[in-house]
Amino acid sequence: MANISKKVTWSGRDDEEEQQKRLQEPGEGTPLLNGSTSGPESRHGRQFPHANFFRIGQLSTVNLDDDIQELEAEKSPPSPKEIPHNEKLLSLKYESLDYDNSENLLFLEEERRINRTPIAAGSGIPQIKCFLNGVKIPHVVRLKTLVVKVCGVILSVAGGLAVGKEGPMIHSGSVIAAGISQGRSTSLKKDFKIFEYFRRDTEKRDFVSAGAAAGVSAAFGAPVGGVLFSLEEGASFWNQLLTWRIFFASMISTFTLNFVLSFYKNKPGDLSNPGLINFGRFDTKENGYNIYEIFIFICMGAIGGILGAVFNAANYWLTIFRIRYIHRRYLQVIEAMLVAAVTATIAFIMIYYSNDCQPLQENSIEYPLQLFCADGQYNSMASTFFTTPERSVRSLFHDPAGSFDPQTLGLFTLVYFILACWTYGLTVSAGVFIPSLLIGAAWGRLFGILLQLASNGANWADPGKYALLGAAAQLGGIVRMTLSLTVIIVEATGNVTYGFPVMLVLMTAKIVGDCFIEGLYDIHIKLQSVPFLHWEAPVTSHSLISREVMSAPVTCIKRREKVGVIVDFLSDTSSNHNGFPVVENNSDTTQPPRLCGLILRSQLIVLLKHKVFVERENMSLTQRRLKLKDFRDAYPRFPPIQSIHVSQDERECLMDMTEFMNPTPYTVPQDASLPRLFKLFRALGLRHLVVVDGHNRVVGLVTRKDLARYRIGREGLEELYLAQT
Amino acid sequence: MANISKKVTWSGRDDEEEQQKRLQEPGEGTPLLNGSTSGPESRHGRQFPHANFFRIGQLSTVNLDDDIQELEAEKSPPSPKEIPHNEKLLSLKYESLDYDNSENLLFLEEERRINRTPIAAGSGIPQIKCFLNGVKIPHVVRLKTLVVKVCGVILSVAGGLAVGKEGPMIHSGSVIAAGISQGRSTSLKKDFKIFEYFRRDTEKRDFVSAGAAAGVSAAFGAPVGGVLFSLEEGASFWNQLLTWRIFFASMISTFTLNFVLSFYKNKPGDLSNPGLINFGRFDTKENGYNIYEIFIFICMGAIGGILGAVFNAANYWLTIFRIRYIHRRYLQVIEAMLVAAVTATIAFIMIYYSNDCQPLQENSIEYPLQLFCADGQYNSMASTFFTTPERSVRSLFHDPAGSFDPQTLGLFTLVYFILACWTYGLTVSAGVFIPSLLIGAAWGRLFGILLQLASNGANWADPGKYALLGAAAQLGGIVRMTLSLTVIIVEATGNVTYGFPVMLVLMTAKIVGDCFIEGLYDIHIKLQSVPFLHWEAPVTSHSLISREVMSAPVTCIKRREKVGVIVDFLSDTSSNHNGFPVVENNSDTTQPPRLCGLILRSQLIVLLKHKVFVERENMSLTQRRLKLKDFRDAYPRFPPIQSIHVSQDERECLMDMTEFMNPTPYTVPQDASLPRLFKLFRALGLRHLVVVDGHNRVVGLVTRKDLARYRIGREGLEELYLAQT
Repeated sequence: MANISKKVTWSGRDDEEEQQKRLQEPGEGTPLLNGSTSGPESRHGRQFPHANFFRIGQLSTVNLDDDIQELEAEKSPPSPKEIPHNEKLLSLKYESLDYDNSENLLFLEEERRINRTPIAAGSGIPQIKCFLNGVKIPHVVRLKTLVVKVCGVILSVAGGLAVGKEGPMIHSGSVIAAGISQGRSTSLKKDFKIFEYFRRDTEKRDFVSAGAAAGVSAAFGAPVGGVLFSLEEGASFWNQLLTWRIFFASMISTFTLNFVLSFYKNKPGDLSNPGLINFGRFDTKENGYNIYEIFIFICMGAIGGILGAVFNAANYWLTIFRIRYIHRRYLQVIEAMLVAAVTATIAFIMIYYSNDCQPLQENSIEYPLQLFCADGQYNSMASTFFTTPERSVRSLFHDPAGSFDPQTLGLFTLVYFILACWTYGLTVSAGVFIPSLLIGAAWGRLFGILLQLASNGANWADPGKYALLGAAAQLGGIVRMTLSLTVIIVEATGNVTYGFPVMLVLMTAKIVGDCFIEGLYDIHIKLQSVPFLHWEAPVTSHSLISREVMSAPVTCIKRREKVGVIVDFLSDTSSNHNGFPVVENNSDTTQPPRLCGLILRSQLIVLLKHKVFVERENMSLTQRRLKLKDFRDAYPRFPPIQSIHVSQDERECLMDMTEFMNPTPYTVPQDASLPRLFKLFRALGLRHLVVVDGHNRVVGLVTRKDLARYRIGREGLEELYLAQT
Repeated sequence: MANISKKVTWSGRDDEEEQQKRLQEPGEGTPLLNGSTSGPESRHGRQFPHANFFRIGQLSTVNLDDDIQELEAEKSPPSPKEIPHNEKLLSLKYESLDYDNSENLLFLEEERRINRTPIAAGSGIPQIKCFLNGVKIPHVVRLKTLVVKVCGVILSVAGGLAVGKEGPMIHSGSVIAAGISQGRSTSLKKDFKIFEYFRRDTEKRDFVSAGAAAGVSAAFGAPVGGVLFSLEEGASFWNQLLTWRIFFASMISTFTLNFVLSFYKNKPGDLSNPGLINFGRFDTKENGYNIYEIFIFICMGAIGGILGAVFNAANYWLTIFRIRYIHRRYLQVIEAMLVAAVTATIAFIMIYYSNDCQPLQENSIEYPLQLFCADGQYNSMASTFFTTPERSVRSLFHDPAGSFDPQTLGLFTLVYFILACWTYGLTVSAGVFIPSLLIGAAWGRLFGILLQLASNGANWADPGKYALLGAAAQLGGIVRMTLSLTVIIVEATGNVTYGFPVMLVLMTAKIVGDCFIEGLYDIHIKLQSVPFLHWEAPVTSHSLISREVMSAPVTCIKRREKVGVIVDFLSDTSSNHNGFPVVENNSDTTQPPRLCGLILRSQLIVLLKHKVFVERENMSLTQRRLKLKDFRDAYPRFPPIQSIHVSQDERECLMDMTEFMNPTPYTVPQDASLPRLFKLFRALGLRHLVVVDGHNRVVGLVTRKDLARYRIGREGLEELYLAQT
């Protein structure tokens, strides 16, 4: 089993031959400790004295070895490769974002060049979630993505697929926010030279949070819900000031939308009817609930949890199938076309064979369709299928009792459930909120009708109320949000009275659903092998210490290093580390030298590009000094090392890191436990954490992948493999 | 200027005489660095190369010196002492809470014995805010406090003072939560032997958060608002799991209250009318708002911000007056009686001279008072004064147009403003929410009436709507909350339509108010000299590094230390450090030894109490081993060192810290900047942060006080003095 993730390079010396030798004789002079074997085989071959580990994925490891060999032969940046899917992998394709401010404020980073279609498919919420978590998903906040997403969602919703537009709206909000904050667009090759201060990961993250909140706010007319959505899904360090700003963004978003909508609705200036996706208002006077309904609500929550788990499990297997077999582009297009055709056909068949004709009443639905019904009647099934999903939801919530036949509702739930499940994960822009609400509203209303029958038409068994709670239960069962979803539903329905039942139903749905399978977004994040950090370290991970978790040996740079050495290890494609501990120039070579800072790959590249060299050991830096602006201008797409030419003379020059490195990187002792590392990493939004021994000498480096690879599996603590794809 | 905060003790040696000598010859052998002078004079006498500092409080320093001398003479724990108030002080009376889990889970702490009345006066919100921030406010979550608080608030509300009950309810919720979580009461001397796992600061904090949320939830029927209140006011590290649990607690609180209330209201089981403090529901149908009203809302927000600033400024000066002159207990009682008498007198005078007689209508107020009016009429002023404040608020929100005379409202606003301002900060249990809402509702309604007159009775100028927005503006201007307050108001009024205007008004009030003075709670926290950590480090503090911020020299303990040495420095009343770095036993005494752990005073006391000693250097520990339970049983009130008797023979024994210390404390290099320290401290909820040099040798210790003492003043970065009271 080869070490596929960690490359053994110890560049703390000038002599290249020495370095080569070192590669062949791992362990000698490397900063490893007793109890941990050394060399390339050590990482996976070592013994864990306390932890109960299970190794998974022999098949994929073999594949990965091939992969690596191929990569090394090519000596070019890795391109995505189709491998049999294995969810016990963590992909090395995803890089981290740098949410920790470096002391000297030079914390920009490099983006690897990967040619891929813009990731505009799907809802975008999992991607935004990952971005806020600190994972760099390529192209997630690019203009190209936005354009494709917006066009795509218009087509998919108008085309009648079982999809919603709220996920794409949230993603769009984030892209716009990220774009505005940077004051330029790489796609348009236009730099407005504004907001240069914001050109770093931390600031961009805050803007993306606010953009997501503004998206929710516009979608549901739920500014508070938007803020909570951003926090529940994305935030790690709660910051009052940031929350306050996000709240402001949400508010402006709601206001702007309402103002524009008021013209569309021919009531210019009337702001009292907010939200793009409007489920109609539940009036408070006639609606209430009673203590014995609490138990019914809990039952509904449980049903929602179970149905949500079924939905997620089905979608999980479907997604695995897609990853394995439908990875070519033409197959993806064919599948999307197939889904569209099937959806239309089924809808037509359902309408054709449905005989649910309802009399037209005064309070009836907005756009009744007569179809094959008698005059003065309309086809209930057709009215549900032939409008946008959100209008169907509104009908189910507010149409008077008797507007829907139980049979129609049952059949509709079943069919729409299958269609929505099949559609989500297709390579089209599509949200899952609205379809979930629609499924839930349908079975909720059915539930209400049955209750009415069972209770002989009791007053409290209002089908509309139960449709609302069913919708909440189903959505909660699928996405597993609680706080933000409660507020969104309360804001979108304009009703506070049902806040408590909605809350109850969402919580029950979450608890029940979590017994079976994770939430839909988490499933998709996991299937993409993203190194996502959850809220807390795995519960049984206290027995692991940083010495076991860290990557070692680690490539260190001396405070004054030869240019040639730096160029060589930056060019080494088999190791693509992004952060390098800087160590003191040490006369005693038998001892690993002491840590004095941390420098990023991107910073080194900017330094090389601007040729910030000194010629001799004792010479001070006389060349033009770099400013922060030079780093900001390069953000976020730093040139690859291959594009920088360094002459043979220059290779013999020295580079001095003192000014540019972060002189006080966060460190942990080598016997700190995994939960402690995790907490530090998560709370501070770190990208690199240096592990030092009792004498402040570098022994390893902990990155996001090292923490994300431990998780609780069926048989205890599992360790995931790292793969290049 | 004497060093009043830091005691020079270097107990890293066995020899007591040596230690004594060391006290007289500071600097020699102490772990200090170049650039920082040594000895007791060093801390305040040193030069800051970059920072722009201003020293304040010469007067108080002199007083403090007296204080210290007296304390040293007495050799007893310090008791509170009356000193002239100076807000540029940070009190050493307040200890930190330990929100960071020590690796070995032994992170209990000692409580100093201070005899004080239970802090049941006031609203309790500032105290809870401090507790969640990590400051130990003595007695804040004790049963005695709860009892006094509940009785007090019943009397003060029923007595007709201009106070509310929501602050005390929030505080009560926290006390109950803290009590339940500990499974015992020290006041009742009863230990139920349950929930022992929760006997540590981190767990208690989470319960207190949930309790506060449950309190808001019960007070306003606002479960979501409660969660947000907890987060906005207290949280630092956002944790999804914790939020979820707090949400659950809030939900149960709302449910229980509603269930009990439904019996009180003779509608058993009807849960649709939540909240103890109910402002009545605004129905959505007839109420809306238009684009041009936005500007009016912003104006109202600005008025609220200005009035709030006036309120806060007046209360600030009043509080300073109280601290200086009304600190004796009998004076406090007299003042409370005076306020009560004046309130009653003024109310009577106002009612007597008021001639605002309104005709009784069908839709009129609940409890009309005829008083001196003709039959068929009621006295509007009397109806406002003679009910509870929340009922008055409801009248102002919902009574039909024309129920109040503009003159009455103006006079009422003025008088109630003065009364409420005078009452807050009195030593009675009292909240400020409801009085603020009432003041705001009064001037808001007046504003609405004037608008109606100005617009010739336009439809949109509904006095009730403007009363609501005035109330929001006034409350926002005083307490400066935004997100949580929006949700609380939306939930308490059952109306989502006004969510956007409320939000707008609250934001404007905050922005305008912040131009003049801080929020009321922050003012009171500052006036109590609490070492409260704000969200971020002061903006200009980048030039400060840990070497300048830390306390040094620091008392270190060797891994194996003589019992006598430990007893001596624990008994030294002039230094009351709570955490001690543990260092390796070092043969070379010219070098400060390397850090190997951190141990708390409370842990040392438990070790001494259980006599976990070894007799000779090479002997292993054979005495009975301590369990975590021994530490938990002692939590939170550890015995003082004076109560532990150690014989002369035992003094010669050794204590081994290895098992009990935290082996991997968080450390920072000595040149890390203040914002970096601050971020680490705040995000992880630390109590001690060890500053080490490049060789991992202890050079200092950073505690909460060291960070809280820097703040932005009028002339740049200020450094506060530390005082024992």
